[in-house]
Amino acid sequence: MAIDLITFRKWADTLADLDGMASVLSWDRAVAMPASGSVSRSYQLETLAAVAHRELTRPGIADILDAIVDDDEIDPATRREAELLGRERARAERLPEDLVRAISAAESETFGAWSGTRDRDGWEVVLGPLTRLVDLKRTEASAITSGTDLYDAMLDEYEPGATRARLAPVFRALADRLAPLVEAGAAHAPAPMSDRYWPHDRQMQLARDVARMIGFDLDDGRIGESAHPFTGTLGDGDVRFSTRIDERNPISNISTVLHEAGHALYEQGFTRGFARSALRNAPSLGAHEAQARFWENHVGGSVEFWRLVEPRMRDLFPDAMDGLTADALHAHATAVRRSLIRVEADEVTYNLHVVLRFELESALFSGDLAVADLPTAWNARMQELLGIAPRSAAEGVLQDVHWMEGMFGYFPTYTLGNLYAAQLADAVDTAVGGLEAAIGHAAFPDIADFLRTRVYRYGALVPTAELMERATGVPFGPEALLNRLERRALAPLATTTVR
Amino acid sequence: MAIDLITFRKWADTLADLDGMASVLSWDRAVAMPASGSVSRSYQLETLAAVAHRELTRPGIADILDAIVDDDEIDPATRREAELLGRERARAERLPEDLVRAISAAESETFGAWSGTRDRDGWEVVLGPLTRLVDLKRTEASAITSGTDLYDAMLDEYEPGATRARLAPVFRALADRLAPLVEAGAAHAPAPMSDRYWPHDRQMQLARDVARMIGFDLDDGRIGESAHPFTGTLGDGDVRFSTRIDERNPISNISTVLHEAGHALYEQGFTRGFARSALRNAPSLGAHEAQARFWENHVGGSVEFWRLVEPRMRDLFPDAMDGLTADALHAHATAVRRSLIRVEADEVTYNLHVVLRFELESALFSGDLAVADLPTAWNARMQELLGIAPRSAAEGVLQDVHWMEGMFGYFPTYTLGNLYAAQLADAVDTAVGGLEAAIGHAAFPDIADFLRTRVYRYGALVPTAELMERATGVPFGPEALLNRLERRALAPLATTTVR
Repeated sequence: MAIDLITFRKWADTLADLDGMASVLSWDRAVAMPASGSVSRSYQLETLAAVAHRELTRPGIADILDAIVDDDEIDPATRREAELLGRERARAERLPEDLVRAISAAESETFGAWSGTRDRDGWEVVLGPLTRLVDLKRTEASAITSGTDLYDAMLDEYEPGATRARLAPVFRALADRLAPLVEAGAAHAPAPMSDRYWPHDRQMQLARDVARMIGFDLDDGRIGESAHPFTGTLGDGDVRFSTRIDERNPISNISTVLHEAGHALYEQGFTRGFARSALRNAPSLGAHEAQARFWENHVGGSVEFWRLVEPRMRDLFPDAMDGLTADALHAHATAVRRSLIRVEADEVTYNLHVVLRFELESALFSGDLAVADLPTAWNARMQELLGIAPRSAAEGVLQDVHWMEGMFGYFPTYTLGNLYAAQLADAVDTAVGGLEAAIGHAAFPDIADFLRTRVYRYGALVPTAELMERATGVPFGPEALLNRLERRALAPLATTTVR
Repeated sequence: MAIDLITFRKWADTLADLDGMASVLSWDRAVAMPASGSVSRSYQLETLAAVAHRELTRPGIADILDAIVDDDEIDPATRREAELLGRERARAERLPEDLVRAISAAESETFGAWSGTRDRDGWEVVLGPLTRLVDLKRTEASAITSGTDLYDAMLDEYEPGATRARLAPVFRALADRLAPLVEAGAAHAPAPMSDRYWPHDRQMQLARDVARMIGFDLDDGRIGESAHPFTGTLGDGDVRFSTRIDERNPISNISTVLHEAGHALYEQGFTRGFARSALRNAPSLGAHEAQARFWENHVGGSVEFWRLVEPRMRDLFPDAMDGLTADALHAHATAVRRSLIRVEADEVTYNLHVVLRFELESALFSGDLAVADLPTAWNARMQELLGIAPRSAAEGVLQDVHWMEGMFGYFPTYTLGNLYAAQLADAVDTAVGGLEAAIGHAAFPDIADFLRTRVYRYGALVPTAELMERATGVPFGPEALLNRLERRALAPLATTTVR
């Protein structure tokens, strides 16, 4: 019997369209929508999710997907797409609709309790809903997984192939070897930058300049502003990212642009033939994050980068730049500080924030930790890892939205991104004859060429571990990142006059 | 048997959400999307239309709708909503899917031929596709209508209740009585404004100032920019409109803002309880257009309005305003000129452009005119109505997109809007003790109060003719508009120094 490729293509196209619509609705919500439109937009997103779920689980597709995956004569791209969509479909089908609704309601309740507590310090208010939510997510995990480790089912949604067993030793190595780097870094961090004024519109100009400099195509995308910066593909040929402007701090804007433009370069670099397909995607969140962290940490972490942008900053901000050197900007951008809040953390401490969350959430799913004991466990481990402890739940267990929205297993992908980014940086270093030198010459097309050829163009065609090992020539592990951070910690500090 | 109101509500909610999504996708396309995203966006809109059509015609709903409409004990709003959605559903069900697809393809083909012709002067290229499209639309009309007049089926989609028989005498009266006004107006039109520079950002500031002044709530909406200005409700509490900036002409921006903000005030004024419902809508395009034309023509057509904005314009554009008085701005804004292009036409000639289109499209549907004879008929009638004739199809039959996209029966709603707007202006005049005086005192809250109470809040609850007769106290007809235009033509012209 001939395989019904036409039905498959139409179904996959529809799913891609629905996915793109969700990106448009979300982009507009973050960048353009007045706050008064939020209830309506939530309804729209809910309805869209229901339509997409109905389409994903449409009867009569499963057999076609199986037939495609099993047929050696069909092109590999189509087979991989059928495999990816089939996996998503299987996951959706294993979840009874009652459970999906109960989880959705528990997420809304937990998120509502969390965002409604004053100063986000209402652990007592969050405890009940969050306990119910974790119970339901454990039920979800049981429904999905064929294995025994419930946490793996959570991980798998964001990072296919990752397991607790494979991550645990890597995260343990990070905890051990990052501690002395925090110690050393914190001792040498420059004083925070004094009050200077970096006007909004000029910072947006700088955002465009930096994005364009590293290769983001503004004819094929847009840059916007939102409270929480993000990147999205709204459709083929329409990749957008947002930044956030703080008129007292241009470095946060530049780091954000490097990070988000990194995501965006990846999405602009998928093979054109993957348009309107599930292959127009990263194979995992970790693979995506790696592209962002490469630019943010390994380009933005080099003094050469700051020497490159310094003249442009002096043009745009003659007053604020008075007395500030490229070295000083670099010192601010790479300063290591003990801090309580993940999203404000530097490159070194960031991973310890993730280690903490990985340990706690995997303990929640193994049953070794009760939700009620989270704050105590958080504070104790924070003290061990970073040498400081939150004075309130707002500074601790309540600081992130992820768990409140049922996203367990998401945090590790940030550190996976950091690990892969460091491996990529080593590979780029070899390929271009020195990464720092290439940055110094603004040889961004050479860097982009390597990334496009080795990573971007594959989209979701190749699973993350294989993709990264092929691109970097080394197996997954923490060495590249740790070596880079240790090298930097030992390097003589640039002599800076920092006001 | 109890009527299944829960199923009805859920179905109607879903339709409202899908409708809102289409508005978000369209807004973003016009205001934010890079051109390279257009193919993808078209796919998304197509898929969304297919989803909405499937939902609209979902089995098992028809009986519920009938039961609701027939049950006197159900509240009138729910019954009216069931009636409106039932009508839309019936229309959708009468069209075989093959026909819908054939029309959609013919529209794309015609639009493609039209937009691809150089200078839009390719009648020969358009003729074939347009002929097929008109044939298919006539087939559609036969499928929909129970009556004998195919054109009425077209009208009914945009203006429920309107028929060719009811419109024809009104449009004939307009043709007869507007001709002398064109004659008189054209003789007194000021010379076009000389070259002055009105910078973009300040014009956007002016747009916000004018919109806010007449009552548009910027906390509940947004103002954007697009090539073709429009207004949309992206969700409850999220009404947006766009304007277009010409740095050589601020009057076009101000007129556009008055027009679109008029639409937007209407949408912001629907009863809150109509959220997520088919009642959050105008009962017809003519009713909607009337709200826009009231502000554009009857507020923007008064010298008092220009006296009100003149100081603000002087603040924003000190150089460009040099030597320009409020009276001069008013003279420019209300100048009557014989012109070939509808969208650039003034208040008097505009309706003659519509009369022309109404006559021709109704002749196409009655079979009295062949598509091949359109250009000749257009040019001849243009000469009779306006005393000028196009030198090319681009200046004539090919100037508008409507027919190219299969929108026959749409044009008359522009003039219906003008007619209703004039009747509303008379009613407001009485209610506030003189419309011009109220404008002079910036008593916009009083004007808005009348419109909100008499028109806006009803949404689609009351059919257009009844709504307007209740609001204005007079039956539908051309007298109000003709009297107003004749009065203005006879009024002594303001003495102006126009550069």
